Amino acid sequence: MNQDERAPKRKQLSGPTQRDVAKLANVSQAAVSRVMANNGYVAYDVRRRIEQAADQLGYRPDQLARGLITGQSNIIAVVMADFANPFYPTVLDALTAAIQDQGRQILLFNAGHDQTVDDLIPSVLQYKVAGIVVTTAVLSSNAAEMCLASGVPVVLMNRYSSTGTTNIVSCDNHVGGKQAAETLIAAGCKNLAYIGGRQDSSTNADRRRGFLEVANVSCLNDIPVLERAFHYNWGAQAVHQLMASRPDIDGIFCGDDAVAFGVLDQLRFTLGKRVPEDVSVVGFDDVPSAAWSAYNLTTIRQPLHLLVQKTIALMDSESKADPAVHFIPGELILRGTVRSR
Amino acid sequence: MNQDERAPKRKQLSGPTQRDVAKLANVSQAAVSRVMANNGYVAYDVRRRIEQAADQLGYRPDQLARGLITGQSNIIAVVMADFANPFYPTVLDALTAAIQDQGRQILLFNAGHDQTVDDLIPSVLQYKVAGIVVTTAVLSSNAAEMCLASGVPVVLMNRYSSTGTTNIVSCDNHVGGKQAAETLIAAGCKNLAYIGGRQDSSTNADRRRGFLEVANVSCLNDIPVLERAFHYNWGAQAVHQLMASRPDIDGIFCGDDAVAFGVLDQLRFTLGKRVPEDVSVVGFDDVPSAAWSAYNLTTIRQPLHLLVQKTIALMDSESKADPAVHFIPGELILRGTVRSR
Repeated sequence: MNQDERAPKRKQLSGPTQRDVAKLANVSQAAVSRVMANNGYVAYDVRRRIEQAADQLGYRPDQLARGLITGQSNIIAVVMADFANPFYPTVLDALTAAIQDQGRQILLFNAGHDQTVDDLIPSVLQYKVAGIVVTTAVLSSNAAEMCLASGVPVVLMNRYSSTGTTNIVSCDNHVGGKQAAETLIAAGCKNLAYIGGRQDSSTNADRRRGFLEVANVSCLNDIPVLERAFHYNWGAQAVHQLMASRPDIDGIFCGDDAVAFGVLDQLRFTLGKRVPEDVSVVGFDDVPSAAWSAYNLTTIRQPLHLLVQKTIALMDSESKADPAVHFIPGELILRGTVRSR
Repeated sequence: MNQDERAPKRKQLSGPTQRDVAKLANVSQAAVSRVMANNGYVAYDVRRRIEQAADQLGYRPDQLARGLITGQSNIIAVVMADFANPFYPTVLDALTAAIQDQGRQILLFNAGHDQTVDDLIPSVLQYKVAGIVVTTAVLSSNAAEMCLASGVPVVLMNRYSSTGTTNIVSCDNHVGGKQAAETLIAAGCKNLAYIGGRQDSSTNADRRRGFLEVANVSCLNDIPVLERAFHYNWGAQAVHQLMASRPDIDGIFCGDDAVAFGVLDQLRFTLGKRVPEDVSVVGFDDVPSAAWSAYNLTTIRQPLHLLVQKTIALMDSESKADPAVHFIPGELILRGTVRSR
């Protein structure tokens, strides 16, 4: 490709500049810059001429350039993994909507597949974003330190690390676990079990801990704990293992709704159990499909809109004091998978 | 807050600069700039000194600044609506993973709630992105013209407009609709119906058209068509209307899996029908929950990875010729909601 062919394309790609606007409006480029950044005094008639010239040329202020000049990016990075879990699309939907309402945009990082959050944080910081939300995933102390050093506000949404250096906004998973145990015990279940996600995730650990605190007081028998992943397939596999060794189990708390769907399908379609007559099941999250007739799942609803509101408020907070920690209670949603007494 | 308090924070926020790196390495700032942009000759030992100084200071090249200097942004905008539909998280997961593998990132625009794609396109163009993927939503001819004028490549994924000015990558919905009709007719269904999404969406219209082309040849009775939204609740509502007026219906093609789940739940739990003995049901998409035992849905699988590959290839295409149009066939996945003959 020769130079002649390349030239017009480059011109088209770069679009009209502030210089073009200044020329057409017959004003200085500095005046155009002040109007576009809405920063500094420009006489009314000059401003009008500039705006008309910009409209005529189809000039659009460059948001990336503006961020560099003013030092204020309007981009929030969101780091997520586990898109397969039905809870996270609802989080992403609410979060993007709320951030866009502020005139900001989301740079989305997928920490699934081959990349971990720790791999991604250096890339995220290269974009000089105004804030970082990490959800689904755990931030190592090393990555948390990098964020802290960069001065960019970070919020861990629904996860936390033990480093204590980042803001945390989460459902009160510990209280939710207690509620689940109380619900099963109130229904008359005698032999309880827990099927949950990764042992080292705070979400899973807190739900299990709350559940066991209450269940251990009422249950005479051992309470089996099976943990691996917040995933349908794991729920399906775990309930087979569970019922093979403990056929007397009559109440199961599942660490999230996806696990509960796997548990319910196997109980009903493979293990020949009636839900809730033989076995009662409680989930966690209240994803949309929990309300569908095929599952009709009793579950702990996450306070999604409060979680998003608090997260956004922390992004805007000027405070450089100790990191904020917010635990927001969930709500028990009674449907058809726990028997009535 | 006085000036003294503000000063250190500002310094911390901005981080080390290329000037700091140049000073420590005892080289010119231009040399640092050439090394960071990987652009232009720098002697080996100078490059080494610069890299060491950058490491020591924790300097990270600013990706936004690099985009402005080189004119090559590494950001792809993705415009999505309808996060509630279970197909789109799988699209977003595959798309983000593939784009990150190229060393690029996604700026995510949510066209749901109060904003339409047309409202969002001017904001998207302000970011001088390297490409735009629009999915779930229709681009008006006006918005398509704006993109065309900006010179940014645009791909409509799984939707298209009639303007013919943008690239299109889509499942072959027309052929998929024909496959659904053939499947129901081969199973011995005599009285067919279609329950689908928005009448004016190309996805819905093509699926319905393919279905009716085949069904009209075999069916003696009228084929009811009920269209509103690709949503569980609409499927649940529509099947009640349908069965009230046409209790003889024994085969239903649902425009997507979410609609099919609503149809199946009402048939089984409210209308007292056996699936597939009394009524057979076919969906479209093959979302993860279609394989779950509670639904076990026969459906047309979208060629997700091919759709993503083609979309990415079009972003990188240098061709400014006529827009490309790719229709990729789906695959019939036989499960348990269509009776065997």
